[in-house]
Amino acid sequence: MKDVKDYIRTIADFPHEGIMFRDVTTLFADPRGFRMAIDQLLHPWAGQQIDKVVGLEARGFILGGAIAHQLSKGFVPIRKKGKLPGQTISQAYKLEYGEAVMEMHEDAIQPGEKVLIVDDLLATGGTAQAGIQLIERVGGEIVGLSFIVDLPELGGRKLLESLGMNVNVLCEFEGL
Amino acid sequence: MKDVKDYIRTIADFPHEGIMFRDVTTLFADPRGFRMAIDQLLHPWAGQQIDKVVGLEARGFILGGAIAHQLSKGFVPIRKKGKLPGQTISQAYKLEYGEAVMEMHEDAIQPGEKVLIVDDLLATGGTAQAGIQLIERVGGEIVGLSFIVDLPELGGRKLLESLGMNVNVLCEFEGL
Repeated sequence: MKDVKDYIRTIADFPHEGIMFRDVTTLFADPRGFRMAIDQLLHPWAGQQIDKVVGLEARGFILGGAIAHQLSKGFVPIRKKGKLPGQTISQAYKLEYGEAVMEMHEDAIQPGEKVLIVDDLLATGGTAQAGIQLIERVGGEIVGLSFIVDLPELGGRKLLESLGMNVNVLCEFEGL
Repeated sequence: MKDVKDYIRTIADFPHEGIMFRDVTTLFADPRGFRMAIDQLLHPWAGQQIDKVVGLEARGFILGGAIAHQLSKGFVPIRKKGKLPGQTISQAYKLEYGEAVMEMHEDAIQPGEKVLIVDDLLATGGTAQAGIQLIERVGGEIVGLSFIVDLPELGGRKLLESLGMNVNVLCEFEGL
């Protein structure tokens, strides 16, 4: 029987030459694969209080929407700069070349709220770390982070764990 | 008791001066609001066969993920140009100035599959029409389209209904 990893397709040289892109759209398009992924993203946090589910733009929105609905909780997007219409706080993070900025509405999470962060892919952990910083700056408490794919060679999991985070990944891929 | 529309915040002059932006993030962040929205997006299609749920980038991903999970069906993203890694088909549509292109993986929907399209906002209907064209080009059959907000002055609903589509909107806002 297929597990979550078996539904993920690898596409060579996207978005540029030399990258092996782990494509989760084939997982999402399969009813059994998608449901298994959502269930497994939630398993470690069963029985824990979660007030808000945060999804990181853009594939994290697909997962975060499903998980927030499953839990009957609110969903909060963390977006690339300039996409959110209200008052935002922003956080820069490093890319391979240069930097990027993630934003969150400043009123999206209240002090003391328990937050689960979800995204499809954990690579260097830069985007996730920016998300953690945004949530903690408004007083949110992070229960943990769930990802479908971890690329362990890029060190994201070690980075997040060094920050004291609980990290749940469903599968790993070697090679970039 | 608040209905879906009451959870939506209006922000003036975003993304540019003169626009009244209908911000659904306040709806999504509220557990009761988000659940009501997902339920109401689904009500007209109860009892009908749906094989795939398509979400339009980016807020449609939040809704589409939740709805696909609710139905135990697969989710398919329709994205802005250049974001999907596999073999895609593309469809141009008109903007106020110029045009834009939406893309879908060519293998995401099989001939004869029944498809529900979801997004947060129906304005001119241009993005939705591009989505319809992409799905029909690969042989998908569109059950209907569900949106949270309709801006009737922009004529999107009339456009989609003139194409023979079933359209479900949860609320309307007058004024752009």
